[in-house]
Amino acid sequence: MDTKSEALKKHYEWKGKIEVVSRAPVNTREDLSLAYTPGVAEPCLQIQKNPELSYSLTRRANLVAVITDGTAVLGLGDIGGLAGMPVMEGKCCLFKEFAGVDAFPICIKSKDTDEIVRTIELISESFGGINLEDIAAPRCFEIERRLKERLDIPVFHDDQHGTAVVVGAALINAAKCAGKEISELTVVINGAGAAGIAIGTFLLSLGIKDLIMVDLCGIINRDDTYENAAHSEIAEKSNFSVKKGGLDEAAAGADVLIGVSKPGLFTEKMIKSMAAKPIIFAMANPVPEIMPYLAKDAGAYIVGTGRSDFPNQINNVLVFPGIFKGALSVRAKEITENMKLAAAYAIASVIPDNEITTENIIASPLNKAVADSVADAVARAWNEEKQAANIK
Amino acid sequence: MDTKSEALKKHYEWKGKIEVVSRAPVNTREDLSLAYTPGVAEPCLQIQKNPELSYSLTRRANLVAVITDGTAVLGLGDIGGLAGMPVMEGKCCLFKEFAGVDAFPICIKSKDTDEIVRTIELISESFGGINLEDIAAPRCFEIERRLKERLDIPVFHDDQHGTAVVVGAALINAAKCAGKEISELTVVINGAGAAGIAIGTFLLSLGIKDLIMVDLCGIINRDDTYENAAHSEIAEKSNFSVKKGGLDEAAAGADVLIGVSKPGLFTEKMIKSMAAKPIIFAMANPVPEIMPYLAKDAGAYIVGTGRSDFPNQINNVLVFPGIFKGALSVRAKEITENMKLAAAYAIASVIPDNEITTENIIASPLNKAVADSVADAVARAWNEEKQAANIK
Repeated sequence: MDTKSEALKKHYEWKGKIEVVSRAPVNTREDLSLAYTPGVAEPCLQIQKNPELSYSLTRRANLVAVITDGTAVLGLGDIGGLAGMPVMEGKCCLFKEFAGVDAFPICIKSKDTDEIVRTIELISESFGGINLEDIAAPRCFEIERRLKERLDIPVFHDDQHGTAVVVGAALINAAKCAGKEISELTVVINGAGAAGIAIGTFLLSLGIKDLIMVDLCGIINRDDTYENAAHSEIAEKSNFSVKKGGLDEAAAGADVLIGVSKPGLFTEKMIKSMAAKPIIFAMANPVPEIMPYLAKDAGAYIVGTGRSDFPNQINNVLVFPGIFKGALSVRAKEITENMKLAAAYAIASVIPDNEITTENIIASPLNKAVADSVADAVARAWNEEKQAANIK
Repeated sequence: MDTKSEALKKHYEWKGKIEVVSRAPVNTREDLSLAYTPGVAEPCLQIQKNPELSYSLTRRANLVAVITDGTAVLGLGDIGGLAGMPVMEGKCCLFKEFAGVDAFPICIKSKDTDEIVRTIELISESFGGINLEDIAAPRCFEIERRLKERLDIPVFHDDQHGTAVVVGAALINAAKCAGKEISELTVVINGAGAAGIAIGTFLLSLGIKDLIMVDLCGIINRDDTYENAAHSEIAEKSNFSVKKGGLDEAAAGADVLIGVSKPGLFTEKMIKSMAAKPIIFAMANPVPEIMPYLAKDAGAYIVGTGRSDFPNQINNVLVFPGIFKGALSVRAKEITENMKLAAAYAIASVIPDNEITTENIIASPLNKAVADSVADAVARAWNEEKQAANIK
């Protein structure tokens, strides 16, 4: 049986991949009077007096909403929130199984940015954090920005930042393996959608100085004007030599070529034109921008993909469970750049330096120890920032 | 330790009364490829083609949202949604433990009817049913009415209809016990808020012909005008003899006196003025309109309250778990009057006729067999209605 049919069969058997269970017994009169009326009035009144106690007296402290509008589900595109729910439920399973974080899937039946933002804001007190999922660009930028402004709980668009952090982690070890300094790498990213922009922005934080973004319109540069505000913004922060042209021109002489685009867009010729020891992350799913063996044949030193059947699987399941676990553990009000950097270094360090090889730059997505390392690092980063800012 | 302190302590220990767990294993590569990418794409595409499959391929078929705006929480009033969450979580525990129905609590940070309706509508596809909870009157009527119009999943305001159904069930057996016909009873309801209006309306469906509603303004009658549309509406359907005055005048000669109002409002004098074998449901919580022993001293034949420490506890936990379990089992698009009637008769029939006594008119709220009886009856009622209406 192929994966498609088997997955469908399993979904029929599971009857939903998540389940809501009770943590309080309700078998006796006394049980009822403690978990429900009249006893329940007391925690209610305590929370009314001090809203922070919602983190101690309800599930909020360990609960994340996985929210989508269904406009960019996997590689399937705009299939709608309802149809996207199996993905959201799957994400919730990963949250729970990898980090012990409860996660609940919500699909929103609207494509209107104002409405999506307002809906999430209005239900946000039910949760300790918001994981945005599979929302199309450029709307996702605006939705996340406005929610971060309005909410005092962590908001994290995983397709952007989860991907950025795991690529960052892979790049840290790939650079080590190739004997290059992060700060001296020229990095080309093909695909300037939500993930591409986020990766680019995050790699700048990580210390990359020479970044070149390429989209359907070619190399993004400050001489051109862009309708997409995210493109104008990244144009200002990248491509300081104002390179122009297409992906061929961008790749020539680069150290790193990252694809979050489409199957087949990377050629052997491009790889041959790169600097010594080319690093290729071909992350289109399920078919990468170039197959790893072809890339290797063309001289690639390290190849990573999103797939589990090749070495170096770059998968954001290494990121989001631990990020939220850490953020929730210290009741962080947001997920800051420092927390993301801490997460990337924590993931990279799971592979000890002496075990890094061209085929082992990143931990397996199945390694459930990663989430705790990430959580610890993220919590520490928040506490340090808080201390530095002298916030109480 | 008193109930208050003990309940608070337990809430700190529980760290939330609900938990979201995974039903799918994610331990191996194969697991991941079935529960998540790439396999999960297949159920997504199936739902996109046929949205009904969301009931087979996600948790929706067994999942209810418990939603509040926090404006009428228990007897605490408008304490806000966040502070109301311990009650919502408690409700979710009861759903799961009494009927196996998954329920998830959502608080909405708005008191605006339009916004509340729109928010619930936009997230409704994430659930198989909506249980509205602790929303103040008269807003709750409007919110429920509009949601029922817009959504094709069951919407049920438990404070209204759960209470109405359990009172109906108690009244069926109380009338039997007193040897009176339902259709010949004069019923007085004190308190014309959400619960009172719903009880009145439901008792009319149940066959009560002589209903008198009393509120702070006195006996509701068709000669007066009311700002509250629900009061105008019930005025047209009740009090056909156009009685006027206060609760004293209403109670005189009545067979049944139901309180959903405040402690102490029922007097011994009132009970003495009622017809033979007075039936008193004094449901104010935690202190009833009259204490049962005082009512008995004054000649009450049957006394029911909301409390577990007196006989005849009239508690809507007998209703909502089974109602939703039944409605979900047949994918009912709504909860109709017939389904509620079926639920009331199912609850009543849990006590066999020969076991009905003045102190045993209704099943214990702890009787977990009730939910299945209710679910069966409710499912049957929906199927019969569908058949009768010849809806496919």
